[in-house]
Amino acid sequence: MNRGLGGKAPQVAILAEGQFAPATAKTAIGVLRYAPYPVVAVVDSTKAGTDAARHVGIGAGVPVVATVDDAVALGADVLLIGTAAAGGRIADSYRPFIARALERGLAVWNGLHERVLSDPHLAEAAKRGGGTVRELREPPSDLPIGGHRRHRDGARVVLTVGSDAAVGKMTASLEIVRALERAGERAAFVATGQTGIAIAGEGISVDAVVADFVAGATERMVCDAAERADWVIVEGQGSLTHPGFSGVTLGLLHGAGPDAMVLCHAAFRQTMKGYEREGLPVRDLRDLVRIYEDAAEWRRPPGYPRARVVAIALNTIGMSPEHARSEIGGATHATKLPAADPIREGVAGADRLAEAIRGAVPA
Amino acid sequence: MNRGLGGKAPQVAILAEGQFAPATAKTAIGVLRYAPYPVVAVVDSTKAGTDAARHVGIGAGVPVVATVDDAVALGADVLLIGTAAAGGRIADSYRPFIARALERGLAVWNGLHERVLSDPHLAEAAKRGGGTVRELREPPSDLPIGGHRRHRDGARVVLTVGSDAAVGKMTASLEIVRALERAGERAAFVATGQTGIAIAGEGISVDAVVADFVAGATERMVCDAAERADWVIVEGQGSLTHPGFSGVTLGLLHGAGPDAMVLCHAAFRQTMKGYEREGLPVRDLRDLVRIYEDAAEWRRPPGYPRARVVAIALNTIGMSPEHARSEIGGATHATKLPAADPIREGVAGADRLAEAIRGAVPA
Repeated sequence: MNRGLGGKAPQVAILAEGQFAPATAKTAIGVLRYAPYPVVAVVDSTKAGTDAARHVGIGAGVPVVATVDDAVALGADVLLIGTAAAGGRIADSYRPFIARALERGLAVWNGLHERVLSDPHLAEAAKRGGGTVRELREPPSDLPIGGHRRHRDGARVVLTVGSDAAVGKMTASLEIVRALERAGERAAFVATGQTGIAIAGEGISVDAVVADFVAGATERMVCDAAERADWVIVEGQGSLTHPGFSGVTLGLLHGAGPDAMVLCHAAFRQTMKGYEREGLPVRDLRDLVRIYEDAAEWRRPPGYPRARVVAIALNTIGMSPEHARSEIGGATHATKLPAADPIREGVAGADRLAEAIRGAVPA
Repeated sequence: MNRGLGGKAPQVAILAEGQFAPATAKTAIGVLRYAPYPVVAVVDSTKAGTDAARHVGIGAGVPVVATVDDAVALGADVLLIGTAAAGGRIADSYRPFIARALERGLAVWNGLHERVLSDPHLAEAAKRGGGTVRELREPPSDLPIGGHRRHRDGARVVLTVGSDAAVGKMTASLEIVRALERAGERAAFVATGQTGIAIAGEGISVDAVVADFVAGATERMVCDAAERADWVIVEGQGSLTHPGFSGVTLGLLHGAGPDAMVLCHAAFRQTMKGYEREGLPVRDLRDLVRIYEDAAEWRRPPGYPRARVVAIALNTIGMSPEHARSEIGGATHATKLPAADPIREGVAGADRLAEAIRGAVPA
């Protein structure tokens, strides 16, 4: 999964100044859990001197440090911006850290919409120190219109879909890849968002692509991945029921053209994230299964085999063991599908999802 | 509908060099039919000295001329690029005409993805002659995420949706606006593509917006239009069944949040445009009605009144009168909905669509 990063593995420090906590540091947590390269430090001066795992439950042994210079002393040659803000702007409190990294010649990896070098002070720091910037959301300039390529015969495509944004689609995708690999399968992860790209070292942030090209961008990534794997697991985005992002979700669904889908759901969430004021409820799982299966059919000729939702990946973070167990059982009861929380249940949960996929999709 | 053009009405020449024909000059034809400003000439040296209507069936009295200088002699102060190419590049054969227009100080209106001034020769011509460029597809830079605004109570929103791209959604929308106005209603047209914007003088080309913002862009336009009209007619794009553009269509549908939809269909088309090689059939009208009504519901709380498809707008161009009549009758028979070709049937056809809308959507 390390293509695109160049030869030597990067030594990454994660910038999360003042925000290294579960609610705000989604990118940091994903990278701490899944990155194939070493994370040498987290930069958050408000928590300096502690261990990363104390704050986000993952990253034991990774020190939290106060400054970029401290991270460089630990060997960092990359500074990854590890949090996301609504609107995609770089937080003003981050700019001195980023400037210092560029002055020290580091590579800055940025997954926000705002481009680092559009800030003249940061551009100047880069000039002074020779630092470089990798914009994880910058799409390729030569994207095709979707619907004209078909992946290698024999490769099977699985898309994670969701009841909402930010429910755990990337996590479920990565856990399914690992579980398939444990079962001896050749599996590839297709990253479609900035955290996934920071982890995989490649991918396209489909929400940053001009709308006409979302399906084409996805199709190209799937076809490329199918050349090197028999199972292509595509990270989903948003939800077909999301008032803001549904178009991205449908473009991704039609571009991926999956053989099967895994429905991801945050069991604790009753209202669509960001639409609490509007009181928009999360749909129930049975509705969502039908919605995704219907929509997958639209771009295909009538009579084409229906792509099924084959399993439910639940996110039960913060729940008691009893409550979580009851949610997982309830999901299976409602949908008649295998369900698991691949984080809470660990390998056993992820293996259950992978087994459901292997059982449902013929070779 | 002339907002955004400034005070004085522009005098427009349409550039269609070598391509002024029904199959290629979609933008030119739309502008000739609907623009509220005078079109003084069409520029196509291969047809110079003839009347526009001879080639595209509309534009009687508008001369086709050979050069930009000829158009300027007729009073042109705008040169509108009147054709669209796959991929959105400016045709090389157009560049000398555009350069001349910029040298003569004209405003160039461009609806293609490629930006005029990204060509250094054209940028130089603009500098030399004081010509300006209006990029019709350039989206505003401050677009919101959709789902957080609701239009004025009392305004009703109608979206044209389609069985495919390029079936006549813009035309149907503009004809419905005129028919509602004939019936004494205050109606507004919301332009979502380059031709609609060239006609209306304002709008956002939603297919050129970064995917995360399609719904938000549409929602903003709808809310703005609802301040000045009781009926907001939104130009649809693409199709939910289109393998490349479906994401744009769903973002537009969820951003518009329509009270009713009009399904547009090109009666002569059996296969999705651009997918002849893949042999992807156009869905039948009954399926499409269900697909659009289902999808409109997804972003709304359960129990919200279902947005209905209330009429079928057919495009029967090129068919014999008998064949067209049979298609229109067949559409009504299949869907139990009023159907009309608002171009072939003229005022009577458009009025039938407007009546269906007024009858179906309570005030």
